[in-house]
Amino acid sequence: MAMEIGEDKWKVCCGSSDFAKLMVKASPFSSLETAIDTARDIWFNQVNVTAWLEAFSAHPQIGNTPSPSVNSDFARRSEAEQSTAFATTSASALQELAEWNVLYKRKFGFIFIIFASGRTHTEMLQALKGRYANRPIVELENAAKEQMKITELRMAKLFSDKGSPISTIPQ
Amino acid sequence: MAMEIGEDKWKVCCGSSDFAKLMVKASPFSSLETAIDTARDIWFNQVNVTAWLEAFSAHPQIGNTPSPSVNSDFARRSEAEQSTAFATTSASALQELAEWNVLYKRKFGFIFIIFASGRTHTEMLQALKGRYANRPIVELENAAKEQMKITELRMAKLFSDKGSPISTIPQ
Repeated sequence: MAMEIGEDKWKVCCGSSDFAKLMVKASPFSSLETAIDTARDIWFNQVNVTAWLEAFSAHPQIGNTPSPSVNSDFARRSEAEQSTAFATTSASALQELAEWNVLYKRKFGFIFIIFASGRTHTEMLQALKGRYANRPIVELENAAKEQMKITELRMAKLFSDKGSPISTIPQ
Repeated sequence: MAMEIGEDKWKVCCGSSDFAKLMVKASPFSSLETAIDTARDIWFNQVNVTAWLEAFSAHPQIGNTPSPSVNSDFARRSEAEQSTAFATTSASALQELAEWNVLYKRKFGFIFIIFASGRTHTEMLQALKGRYANRPIVELENAAKEQMKITELRMAKLFSDKGSPISTIPQ
């Protein structure tokens, strides 16, 4: 029996409702790789800027702990992905991140999105400062690419947690 | 005495509040050319995607007459720019445009933006169909470029209506 991956699970991978709906519509998948190919096509070619902004806004700011009240699975993933950062952080790095997060959001209209796994706050702060100089349209696409890396990591976790939930066994 | 161009006039050129505020801040301008250079820099490098979406949403859909209730100067400019189109249109072109406008907005999340002056509805419909195949991020930038063409035409009109409102006469 093929196990179902519902919209709620896809929204943990990527906080866009349109993305989640289209992934359900494209299911089931014969492998993680096929699912990721589909996810990339949906994310970059099918959903629009409104969906991108919705997905970005689902994340806590880098350096903040997520609020678990909205989507606790999503919050747990965010926390796990920042575990290296929080294990090695300092009050000054957090303070500087908080200040740059404000500048970034004021310029671009959405929060700074970065693939956080294995990165320290100092490294991410460096990346933020580098990306801050970009044109808004360039940075929008950078954020979408970082979101896709996060989505792929979360999909891999989802598939490994579920065993092989996606094999399409006849009957 | 240098004449003032207020935010309301800049919003007739481009419906983004951020754009209008930054143009006022950068005033006065020594010529239309200088003003256009500044406007391009503000539009492409400084304001973000939220400002772009606000500007797009200020326009009536191509084939619709604008509602004059919101911003009557803006509505008059939209009507004037579609005068060729309305002079040569047909019921079938308007019907097809209305249908494609719906498809376009559903895909991209904003209405179809095109520099309308001197173009017929049939020509614009052709352009819409061609652009419909684009990736959302590509089409976002296309719409921003078309908006800039509209802004430049409206700035030229504003400056010519005002004589030389922008010369900076000492004292």
